[in-house]
Amino acid sequence: MIDAGILQRLGELLASRRDADPNTSYVASLCARGEDAILRKVLEEATECLLASRQGDKLHLVREVADLWFHSMVLLAWHGLKPDDVLAELRRREGISGIDEKASRG
Amino acid sequence: MIDAGILQRLGELLASRRDADPNTSYVASLCARGEDAILRKVLEEATECLLASRQGDKLHLVREVADLWFHSMVLLAWHGLKPDDVLAELRRREGISGIDEKASRG
Amino acid sequence: MIDAGILQRLGELLASRRDADPNTSYVASLCARGEDAILRKVLEEATECLLASRQGDKLHLVREVADLWFHSMVLLAWHGLKPDDVLAELRRREGISGIDEKASRG
Amino acid sequence: MIDAGILQRLGELLASRRDADPNTSYVASLCARGEDAILRKVLEEATECLLASRQGDKLHLVREVADLWFHSMVLLAWHGLKPDDVLAELRRREGISGIDEKASRG
Repeated sequence: MIDAGILQRLGELLASRRDADPNTSYVASLCARGEDAILRKVLEEATECLLASRQGDKLHLVREVADLWFHSMVLLAWHGLKPDDVLAELRRREGISGIDEKASRG
Repeated sequence: MIDAGILQRLGELLASRRDADPNTSYVASLCARGEDAILRKVLEEATECLLASRQGDKLHLVREVADLWFHSMVLLAWHGLKPDDVLAELRRREGISGIDEKASRG
Repeated sequence: MIDAGILQRLGELLASRRDADPNTSYVASLCARGEDAILRKVLEEATECLLASRQGDKLHLVREVADLWFHSMVLLAWHGLKPDDVLAELRRREGISGIDEKASRG
Repeated sequence: MIDAGILQRLGELLASRRDADPNTSYVASLCARGEDAILRKVLEEATECLLASRQGDKLHLVREVADLWFHSMVLLAWHGLKPDDVLAELRRREGISGIDEKASRG
């Protein structure tokens, strides 16, 4: 059984790195370069997911989705948000009307 | 405390929808349209994250990151993968050498 | 021999549509929806180019690159710019030091 | 008056670089890295257009659209296509029913 607490631990780590010395970590240096640098990475990793999917390499795809989630969590941290905010939103959708019912989507 | 089990529940739901009747759910209809349709959604949601971030609307950003994770999980399900595979990859990086140490990245 | 004046004619058309009644044309309605709506289309068409390329369908790829150029010209028009500004930039690069010399790129 | 022949000259240049020694030019080295490397650049430049547009820097936007067109022309060259194929498609749309009439679009 995988410990899902990894997202919470990552959220705390990223929050602590947001304003840290850029020389000490990858995330600190990325955040120091600003919002657009983070946004470039989110789009870049989404593109990598697409290419990995088309290549049909499942291990590669898992790594790229991990990169995509990681950098979207950096973006959340940059805005003072955390992974639990996203999990809460997914739970909210699950609770209201079924997260995958046709009627609940525009 | 948010129940992180939402990702596991979503993973099971999406796996069950992958080959379901397209008329019964959004995910089933998306999967029936094929890999490229899912890939378009992943890129579209990454773009929405970028626009929401630049608008500075935090609630909007949370919803768009939720959409991005949701559709990347649909992509995983399409390949027979699940969110736990991504969480395991993130834990692996955490365990080996620190997930955010400069030395551990190319 | 293809008449390259198509880009100039398109630039003039798009400029005239930028503030026109949204009910009269596709471009006018897209511009009325604002900058983010145009930006979504630019990213969407870039994604379509990627998918068409991977499918190896050359006619499809030509149509998608045409869509990408078209929507990037809508974006230019939205900013009061025109295709000739882009052609001038490409000519400038050609003139200075060779547009494809290794030394001229960061 | 800008000489629109720049696209034709670029198309010929890119075709000649497609299979050239990767050490001699940027385009040759990009093509040598393969289709996915070119696709990454197309998506990256589309993202740069989006960020430049949101920054409201018109000179920057012109440079990024030039980069986007340039790399989409590298993609065309990689497939044995040329800018004139795209211009012909845009002219075809112009000729048939008006390139920006609501009725002519799905």
